[in-house]
Amino acid sequence: MDKIKSLTGMPDHYNDGDKNNLSSKIFEVEQKIKEIFISYKLHEIRTPALEDANLFNRSVGNTSDIVNKEIYMFNDRNDKIMALRPEGTASVIRSIIEKKLDNTSHKLWYMGPMWRYERPQKGRYRQFNQAGVEILGIKEGLPEFEMISLVCSIISSFNLKHCSIKINHLGTKENKQAFCDALVQYLQPFKDSLDDKDIERISKNPLRVLDSKSEKTQALLRNAPSIKDFIDKTAIGLLLSIQNEFSDLCDIEIDYSLVRGLDYYSGFVFEAVSSELGAQDSFLGGGRYDYLCKKLGGKDLPSIGMALGIERFADLVSIDTSFRKVVSFLVVTSNLEPKAYKIAHHLRTLNKEIILDIHLSEGSLKSKLRRANKDNSDYVIIIGEDELQNNTAVIKYLKDEFKEQQSVTLEELYSFYKTI
Amino acid sequence: MDKIKSLTGMPDHYNDGDKNNLSSKIFEVEQKIKEIFISYKLHEIRTPALEDANLFNRSVGNTSDIVNKEIYMFNDRNDKIMALRPEGTASVIRSIIEKKLDNTSHKLWYMGPMWRYERPQKGRYRQFNQAGVEILGIKEGLPEFEMISLVCSIISSFNLKHCSIKINHLGTKENKQAFCDALVQYLQPFKDSLDDKDIERISKNPLRVLDSKSEKTQALLRNAPSIKDFIDKTAIGLLLSIQNEFSDLCDIEIDYSLVRGLDYYSGFVFEAVSSELGAQDSFLGGGRYDYLCKKLGGKDLPSIGMALGIERFADLVSIDTSFRKVVSFLVVTSNLEPKAYKIAHHLRTLNKEIILDIHLSEGSLKSKLRRANKDNSDYVIIIGEDELQNNTAVIKYLKDEFKEQQSVTLEELYSFYKTI
Repeated sequence: MDKIKSLTGMPDHYNDGDKNNLSSKIFEVEQKIKEIFISYKLHEIRTPALEDANLFNRSVGNTSDIVNKEIYMFNDRNDKIMALRPEGTASVIRSIIEKKLDNTSHKLWYMGPMWRYERPQKGRYRQFNQAGVEILGIKEGLPEFEMISLVCSIISSFNLKHCSIKINHLGTKENKQAFCDALVQYLQPFKDSLDDKDIERISKNPLRVLDSKSEKTQALLRNAPSIKDFIDKTAIGLLLSIQNEFSDLCDIEIDYSLVRGLDYYSGFVFEAVSSELGAQDSFLGGGRYDYLCKKLGGKDLPSIGMALGIERFADLVSIDTSFRKVVSFLVVTSNLEPKAYKIAHHLRTLNKEIILDIHLSEGSLKSKLRRANKDNSDYVIIIGEDELQNNTAVIKYLKDEFKEQQSVTLEELYSFYKTI
Repeated sequence: MDKIKSLTGMPDHYNDGDKNNLSSKIFEVEQKIKEIFISYKLHEIRTPALEDANLFNRSVGNTSDIVNKEIYMFNDRNDKIMALRPEGTASVIRSIIEKKLDNTSHKLWYMGPMWRYERPQKGRYRQFNQAGVEILGIKEGLPEFEMISLVCSIISSFNLKHCSIKINHLGTKENKQAFCDALVQYLQPFKDSLDDKDIERISKNPLRVLDSKSEKTQALLRNAPSIKDFIDKTAIGLLLSIQNEFSDLCDIEIDYSLVRGLDYYSGFVFEAVSSELGAQDSFLGGGRYDYLCKKLGGKDLPSIGMALGIERFADLVSIDTSFRKVVSFLVVTSNLEPKAYKIAHHLRTLNKEIILDIHLSEGSLKSKLRRANKDNSDYVIIIGEDELQNNTAVIKYLKDEFKEQQSVTLEELYSFYKTI
C-alpha cells in the first residue's frame, strides 16, 4: 500500500536520545526557557492555532515581513477565511480584549507552533515553534529592563558565546512619522537606481528600506538621515541606560538602523543576534507596541513583547547530558513474568527522580546489556528465573568499572534504589 | 473598531495564577505527565498539526467515532485535502514509516493540540489537548504491563480517587471477526426495534453496538454472545494476570463489553474511568493495534498505545500550591532607577529556584504590598530612594508575622537570597 508522506515544510520532531539531534535540542530549549519564564513570574497564555484571518491583516499589517501571501489561510466549510497563526502577539491581544482584561497589567508568556505559507527553504519551515513574552499595561520604563534582563538570562542559561543584543528606539508616533518622511525625501532622487522591492518599501513602509539586502541601497543609506536625530533625549537616555546596566552581562549595541519587521512596533525595539548564524543572524526580537490593543478594538494598553525562534535558537545551543540517573531493568526469563514487572513498577514509586528503562522486547542478556551500555545507563538491574524464585535481584554498576555486580534481596534492592 | 473574536470551540487558556482555573490545571497536568513519561524512558515525538487527509481516512476509519465529518478538513491552495489531526497515533506511525524506523522498537510519547469539526458542546472543543504513549515493535506481553503501570502512575501522582481501569481483550483478528459475526446474527432478529444509529453500526462496525447509549439495546445485549467465549486462554490469562498484579494500586475491572472507538484496535484494550465524570466517564484509553503500521504502508509492527484527554483529566484533579518560593521586588522611587532594577537581575542569577516578581507598574508602596500579599509572596524586597543612596534594601517577611522587617546591606541581601 502507498505510504502517506508528511506535508512540505512540516517536519516531525523525534528525540531519539541523541543530544546533537535538532529535535532533542528543541525540546530541551523549550523546557529551559519555560523555567526561566516561570522564575520571572510570567503567566502562561495559550491561544488556539486558528484565528479569523482578519486578526492578522489588521495587526501584523500587509506591508510587513509577514505579508498576506505568507499567512497560511484557507476557507472553512462556511467560506469564512481562517488563518493558522503566523505569530503570537496578535492572538494574545485579541484574547486579552475578549476576556475584558485590557484594563490592567499582565506579564505573559506563550510557546507553541506557528505557521507560514512560504516556499520552504533551508531553516525555514511551514510549521515552526516560537516562544514569546508580552508585558501589557505598563508604559515605557521598567518593562524595557525586564525584557533585556530576560534576554540576558536566556543567553546565559545556555552559555551562548558570540551573541549580542541590538537596541534602538523608534520614538513616538510623530517622531517615527517625521523620520519616515525625511527618509523618503532623501531616497526619492535615487529611486530609479533601487531594486523593485526597495521601491515598493519606500511607498508602503519606508522604515523597512533600512533592512534592505541590496548593497547599493545600504551604501546609499550611509548618508541617510538617522532616527537618532528624530527622537528625544529621554529615548536616547533609555538606550544608554540599558546599555550601561547590562553591558557586563552581554554585549549591548545601540543600532540606530534597527527596525523590526512588524508594522505595529513603536518606541524601544531590540534584537538578539549571534555571529554563528550567518546572514540571518537574529534569533530573538521584540519591541514596544503601545497602539496595537486599541487598533484591535481594545483599550489603550501600552505594551512590550518579544519572540524567540525555537528552531533557530536550538541550532545555536549544545545541551548537557541529563543529570538524571538512568537505570536499565532487564527481565531475563523464558516466560512472561508479571511478578518481575511488578518489581519495576514498585521501584518507580520509590524514587521518581530516576529514569527507569524496562527493556520490553525479547533478546539475550548480552544484547540487553549492550543496549543498556549504549543508552548510557548508570545501573542495570537483572531479574532472571533464579532471582524470581529466591526474591533477589542482580545490580550491575555500569559507571564504576571496579565495582563487581551484586546479588541482593528485594528489600536491599529497594533500599539501594531509594538512595541512588 | 470592531473586536475580533476567537473561533467557535477554540478556547484560549490563560493561567492567571488561580489554581482552580481549568487552564492552570491543564498546564500543571501536562508538566506532571511529561515528567512521568520521561521517567519511563519514553522519547518525545512531535508531529505537525496538518496531515494529508488520507492518513486519517485510512487509519482511524470512517466507521469509527471520529467519522469523516468530524475531522477538521479543508482544501489548500492547490486543492489538496488537508486535515488538522484528530488524534495522535496515525501521525506517529506515518512518521516512523517515513523515517524508516518501522523495523525496530520504540517507546514514544507525545502531547499537544488535536482538532475536530464537531458542534461544540459542554466539555467538547474543536481544539483540545491530548497526551499519548505508543510502544512500537513489541508483541503482546510486557508492553501491556508497562501501559497499565503508566496509567497507575498517572492516577496516583494526582492522588485521584474514584478511578478504575477497565480492561478487555479483543482476541486475534479471527476471534474478533467470529465474535462480530455472532453478534450480528444475534441482533439481526431485533433489528427493527433498534434505533437508526445502532442499525447502522450493525452493518458497518458491529462491535460499536456494545457502546450504544440506548437502554433498549443495552437490555438486549445482556443475553448477547460475549467476547469472552471467542478469545483463547492466553488472552484471558493476560487479563487475569494484569488484574492480579495491579489491583493493590488501582481498581482493575475486566469488562468484556469494553470496545474502543477506533477501528484499528485488536488484542488488549483498556480505559481509565472516573465516577466523578458522569455519563462520559472515560479520561484515558488505549489498546493494541498490531496491524496499523502495515495498513499505512509500513512493515509489520506490533504496537500498543494510549491517549489521555487533557481537558477532561484536568477537570478531575486539584493541584497543590507551588512549592517554589515567591519574592516580590518593589522599586519605590520617583524616577526610573536602572540601578535598582539591576539588583533584581543580579538576585535572579544567584538563586534560580526563586520566582522573583518585579512589580513593573507605578503605584504606592501600600498598593504594591497589598498585591504582594494577594499573590502569596513569601518575602518582599523594597528599594526606595534612601536604600538606593546607601546601597541597602528592606526585607519584609510576609509569612512570618512575628519577624520585623529588616534593613540590610546589598551584600547581606545577596547572602540572604542565596539561602531562601
